[in-house]
Amino acid sequence: MKIAILPGDGIGPEIMAQAVKVLNVLGEQFEMESADVGGAGYAAHGHPLPPATLALAKSADAVLFGAVGDFKYDTLERALRPEQAILGLRRELALFANLRPAILYPELAGASTLKPEVVSGLDILIIRELTGDIYFGKPRGVRECPDGPFKGEREGFDTMRYAETEIRRIAHVAFQAAQKRSKRVTSVDKANVLETFQFWRDIVTDVHKEYPDIELDHMYVDNAAMQLVRAPKKFDVMVTGNMFGDILSDCAAMLTGSIGMLPSASLDANNKGLYEPSHGSAPDIAGKGIANPLATILSAAMMLRFSLGKTEQAERIENAVKKVLAQGLRTADIFEAGTTKVGTEEMGNAVVKAL
Amino acid sequence: MKIAILPGDGIGPEIMAQAVKVLNVLGEQFEMESADVGGAGYAAHGHPLPPATLALAKSADAVLFGAVGDFKYDTLERALRPEQAILGLRRELALFANLRPAILYPELAGASTLKPEVVSGLDILIIRELTGDIYFGKPRGVRECPDGPFKGEREGFDTMRYAETEIRRIAHVAFQAAQKRSKRVTSVDKANVLETFQFWRDIVTDVHKEYPDIELDHMYVDNAAMQLVRAPKKFDVMVTGNMFGDILSDCAAMLTGSIGMLPSASLDANNKGLYEPSHGSAPDIAGKGIANPLATILSAAMMLRFSLGKTEQAERIENAVKKVLAQGLRTADIFEAGTTKVGTEEMGNAVVKAL
Ligand SMILES: CC(C)[C@H](C(=O)O)[C@@H](O)C(=O)O
Ligand SMILES: CC(C)[C@H](C(=O)O)[C@@H](O)C(=O)O
Repeated sequence: MKIAILPGDGIGPEIMAQAVKVLNVLGEQFEMESADVGGAGYAAHGHPLPPATLALAKSADAVLFGAVGDFKYDTLERALRPEQAILGLRRELALFANLRPAILYPELAGASTLKPEVVSGLDILIIRELTGDIYFGKPRGVRECPDGPFKGEREGFDTMRYAETEIRRIAHVAFQAAQKRSKRVTSVDKANVLETFQFWRDIVTDVHKEYPDIELDHMYVDNAAMQLVRAPKKFDVMVTGNMFGDILSDCAAMLTGSIGMLPSASLDANNKGLYEPSHGSAPDIAGKGIANPLATILSAAMMLRFSLGKTEQAERIENAVKKVLAQGLRTADIFEAGTTKVGTEEMGNAVVKAL
Repeated sequence: MKIAILPGDGIGPEIMAQAVKVLNVLGEQFEMESADVGGAGYAAHGHPLPPATLALAKSADAVLFGAVGDFKYDTLERALRPEQAILGLRRELALFANLRPAILYPELAGASTLKPEVVSGLDILIIRELTGDIYFGKPRGVRECPDGPFKGEREGFDTMRYAETEIRRIAHVAFQAAQKRSKRVTSVDKANVLETFQFWRDIVTDVHKEYPDIELDHMYVDNAAMQLVRAPKKFDVMVTGNMFGDILSDCAAMLTGSIGMLPSASLDANNKGLYEPSHGSAPDIAGKGIANPLATILSAAMMLRFSLGKTEQAERIENAVKKVLAQGLRTADIFEAGTTKVGTEEMGNAVVKAL
């Protein structure tokens, strides 16, 4: 089995090194091959997603991704900026289903800005559609305004859109995920304003007929943002579009206060996937050896489960992570009085030891 | 001076009655005229925004709005649903600038789901553009997908768009509001993905040149949602588009835990405005006499300040509200042990008395 290793920028290489170390001690035969991506791709090959990197990602059984972005690439034109690598990989590999768990580990309840009783035991799975919506819809650009009160002046514009198949397949992913959890799905839309999301609601409602065991409710995105703050534990599986999912999944992640702990998976129709931590490249702390590698290590676990069919190994890693938390080991981002502060490498070593 | 009073549905009439009572004891000569809106408009005249209601709103110097929506109108076709009244009023009255304060009164710090140290003293002003963006952009609808992998099947679609003038005028509102506050503006966009919001960022940056006294920073909407949860007090004035503003303003309001306290203003280019509480119509508690009228009373205060030029009267009302809070009076939504629970009318009377 071949894994493409794309460390990227900022803290990406450091945290990836720990995940690779963990994969190496499982006793499995993985072929791991690395390539430059993001700013590192641009610096070495003139493009955030160099052709060789894309070819590797396509040929691999799964992609493990660190993080991309750094201050020094902020002034590049948009097409060359690091985040284009993420958008390009999603599109080229047809990774339409993004699974973002927002889990609060009991040991880390204090890290949240929310009151413990509001968030302790939080376990939400946000399923974000990842290859459609206003992210990729055309036409888009800056043009002369064609009509209305501003006719003739410049306007920026984009197209939001969802085809029936796109909605159906992500709805199936959500209902099937819910079957393995508490059998409830909240579909988030803005059907009261947007045609795209009235259509979304109609199709999700239709797909739901195939899942009589699942309870479905619909919620407007503004209300969903409020309810995430008010009573997040009421949610179990949430499914939504690309744009709303971008906002809500980050909001939900931050409710835990420990975004350095949260993995994510982006899957295609055959469960091939890209796995990456939910946090960013944190260029301000890059190279200091203090970043939290656990989200990347847990992303490797998700990869073993969803793309490589190694559920048992996935669980081994997840249990090892729980164990190091129970031992009181903490990187700086989740450190509290009474626990032991460790660096990136020590944390990786502790997980290896716990395995 | 003529005020259009639009109570609407659910708790709308009850809370509006208290605001009218408060306006009546100020000793000013207001001509107040009421009309049906939302579900009440549909029930009485077959449309959520009956022509007579729109005419009244147009002829008035300001509009005081309760809330709209009720379960019984949920099955109506979209064009007849209560919320169309809000969208219609915004569009017809050209109310492009929505001001939504998220303020946490010290007495109510306990009502928040966030830890007191994270939110106490919170005072954010969210400025949401209200007549542009994907809310009104055309074309929109359900059609046969014109190209791409889903060609020929049905798709829902909408158009996001912002013309230069629309961005300029809301940017001016934000910078001028910041001049009266702590001189910082955060412009929220998604310039890394959307053409509309790269254009937004460029124009806001350009308008900023006229305000050398104001500090401007730009933030992606997903990050803004995270930072609102992580460290909301870092924000002062936030300015954003209609769709992102819908989500973020509700999220920010909920951080306070006391959305029943939060007013809002929607202004046109001449400071004529519509004023409404930030909360909804709460049909589940309608008619019980337990709804919190303070957001509506504070909306009346905003109206006095922004549209009617009566700053002193606005402050009188705001001080009266602070006084009743200091007296320990609370409606059910903000009740805590050690305070005195009162109903809608008692709360209105207490404000009148404090005046
Ligand atoms: C970097 C950016 C293009 C990306 C997105 O908006 O999808 C990121 O925010 C994410 O959520 O993975
Ligand atoms: C009712 C709805 C159309 C409206 C909006 O989306 O603008 C509401 O959520 C608001 O924020 O005032």
